[in-house]
Amino acid sequence: MQVEEIKTKIKAAVIAAKKAKPLVGSITNAVTINFVANAQLAAGGSAAMVYLPDEGQTLAQLSNAFYINVGTMLPIYAEALPKTAAVLAASNKPWVLDPVAIGIGSLRTDILRKFKEYKPTIIRGNASEIIALAGLWNLEGGSLLSKVRGVDATEDVNTARKAAEALAAYTGGAVAVSGVIDLITDGDSTVYSYGGSLLMERITGAGCSLGGVMGVYAAVADPFIAAVTGSALYNVAGSLAAAKVSGPGSFIAQFLDEIFLLSAEEIGNNKLEKDDKI
Amino acid sequence: MQVEEIKTKIKAAVIAAKKAKPLVGSITNAVTINFVANAQLAAGGSAAMVYLPDEGQTLAQLSNAFYINVGTMLPIYAEALPKTAAVLAASNKPWVLDPVAIGIGSLRTDILRKFKEYKPTIIRGNASEIIALAGLWNLEGGSLLSKVRGVDATEDVNTARKAAEALAAYTGGAVAVSGVIDLITDGDSTVYSYGGSLLMERITGAGCSLGGVMGVYAAVADPFIAAVTGSALYNVAGSLAAAKVSGPGSFIAQFLDEIFLLSAEEIGNNKLEKDDKI
Amino acid sequence: MQVEEIKTKIKAAVIAAKKAKPLVGSITNAVTINFVANAQLAAGGSAAMVYLPDEGQTLAQLSNAFYINVGTMLPIYAEALPKTAAVLAASNKPWVLDPVAIGIGSLRTDILRKFKEYKPTIIRGNASEIIALAGLWNLEGGSLLSKVRGVDATEDVNTARKAAEALAAYTGGAVAVSGVIDLITDGDSTVYSYGGSLLMERITGAGCSLGGVMGVYAAVADPFIAAVTGSALYNVAGSLAAAKVSGPGSFIAQFLDEIFLLSAEEIGNNKLEKDDKI
Repeated sequence: MQVEEIKTKIKAAVIAAKKAKPLVGSITNAVTINFVANAQLAAGGSAAMVYLPDEGQTLAQLSNAFYINVGTMLPIYAEALPKTAAVLAASNKPWVLDPVAIGIGSLRTDILRKFKEYKPTIIRGNASEIIALAGLWNLEGGSLLSKVRGVDATEDVNTARKAAEALAAYTGGAVAVSGVIDLITDGDSTVYSYGGSLLMERITGAGCSLGGVMGVYAAVADPFIAAVTGSALYNVAGSLAAAKVSGPGSFIAQFLDEIFLLSAEEIGNNKLEKDDKI
Repeated sequence: MQVEEIKTKIKAAVIAAKKAKPLVGSITNAVTINFVANAQLAAGGSAAMVYLPDEGQTLAQLSNAFYINVGTMLPIYAEALPKTAAVLAASNKPWVLDPVAIGIGSLRTDILRKFKEYKPTIIRGNASEIIALAGLWNLEGGSLLSKVRGVDATEDVNTARKAAEALAAYTGGAVAVSGVIDLITDGDSTVYSYGGSLLMERITGAGCSLGGVMGVYAAVADPFIAAVTGSALYNVAGSLAAAKVSGPGSFIAQFLDEIFLLSAEEIGNNKLEKDDKI
Repeated sequence: MQVEEIKTKIKAAVIAAKKAKPLVGSITNAVTINFVANAQLAAGGSAAMVYLPDEGQTLAQLSNAFYINVGTMLPIYAEALPKTAAVLAASNKPWVLDPVAIGIGSLRTDILRKFKEYKPTIIRGNASEIIALAGLWNLEGGSLLSKVRGVDATEDVNTARKAAEALAAYTGGAVAVSGVIDLITDGDSTVYSYGGSLLMERITGAGCSLGGVMGVYAAVADPFIAAVTGSALYNVAGSLAAAKVSGPGSFIAQFLDEIFLLSAEEIGNNKLEKDDKI
């Protein structure tokens, strides 16, 4: 698949999402739960969030795609997350995993280890998180010693390329590594997505909400295209919003506006580079 | 009560709320908890949120009115919600119930069924939710088969008119059905409130925060007037905000500004139509 | 220490925080958790939030400073808060306590009583909360009868001056009392910080996020300077933002922008008055 074909598919995914208004259920952290929902709505999806095990199972069945983010773990997650992931896996429902803050806490580690068997359709994280998850799953390129520091994306995405490819090869889905330049791979094909803004590191939730929006696209496109489409949207919207504001508070509002307003054409024209595995 | 009398009472409620700054306690969902609090503050109220049973009971006693929204249920809700509602009912404190996502999960269903005995002063939901709650309470116009899909208000409010009237007749309070046009009834008198914006469906929390603001007005007005005042405020503020912005992110900020700035006169002049039960 | 020396130290703290980007972990309430994180990021810090006991302990060790806010208590807090505070105390890590809604609920009271032994580095609250905490800890100026009403700061900060001084003398840290004029004391030196806006009472989280931002500065300055720097930042940013907007929704965005944009010079020049204990 060449870059032009990818761009055509991105445009189709954007249009399909706005038409279908897919319901994307989420179990996600308290810090950015509102921003995730608003970003999903701005991109054309429908959002619903739960915490309880039977609600996660029901919502997994009702949803067109799902988003699981392991930030701000609650005790009930010990039951809710595995049960919800099991339903998603059993029903072949596309879902996005955001392994935020991997390495902190025993329950988070247990659950992320268990998710290996449920094979998330898309995994999105920063380089540290992707390396750590590959380490936890004993995959190539992984390391359990990957440094975790808040929710920053401080490393070059290429440090996680091998880990990302190994994770995608294992799940049969896609992996997106967020950084100054984003990397998205299905294990074979890898693309770099350009754009965004440094202001995205000065707000909380740019990464979480991107994962939530990839869920919207995963309801209407294959995992690789869904992940690339989400990254393209965020890079274009982030650049445009940053050019219009002077600080992070105004950026949040303008960024949601851009997500809402951007055409499929504008998103599809985001700068992409392809660099496949040799 | 004629439309002009209702409008006069709306204006009085707006003024009374800004003067009294009533404390409205809430147990509400994590997605929109911040927006609920900010909307209550913008309308002139004071906000406090809790989760624990004894805190709910204490806050119910301290508050001038209360708001209960069953989104993002937590295990502790099994104890917190019935105990809080029991205090509210025993002390004749006005409270608003938002039966969001009714039909998902056994705990939510159990609690919403139990709320029948505590007779919420105002019930606010979209058409599907109102029909489902009437079904759960075995009232006319209700159906347990009402479709639930995220937090959308996709149905015409009139599909829920019989259910809304039956609920209001049962509780002796008011029921508000949110849609493109809003319906508010006390079981006998029914009004339609016009305005708002399609952008309100592209943000999360327009409905939740409306419920929270109805709580502010319920502290200073009877249930029907409180519900109509909240709807009028949201319809006027929504229309004005939408005319000034280009997307949902800016809309959120502008909408809170309008809630804060609108005069009693402007809110009272919102288009209302009366159509009583024959 | 004269006012000019304090101002010089404020400027140094602002610069140091932007350079060090300290990680400030938090266990904080659901209402304003997003705003706390965004304010910490805008001020130059890095933010991470957790709920679980072992995550609190680990994050306390990883963080440069910590913020604990007892709003929206969850059952797991019974274990998480004391364990986290114990790690903070044992490792001499600076941390900020926000005793929001003190007096509501038995768990909140138990935990706040227990915190006496862990001596929070900075305590931030409104006058009522500071008086109540001093009362709970049996310190001079305290009273268990202090009225608690939502999250308002309705009393003159001077009503809490004795309580604040007693708390700071006991902990060896600093206490900040938020009001129309803010009071900050280390038990001996006391300063009043001027500015801000009445709009800060019409949004939720001005106080919580100030506590979170004091955590950012506590990672790079002594407790008294960290508390004064946070107050100065909020007073300057609040005044500037209020002058540019017409309502609370726009204020939130503009306020975060100002936090992000203000220079050390501008923050250091905030009006301060010194009035030491005689």
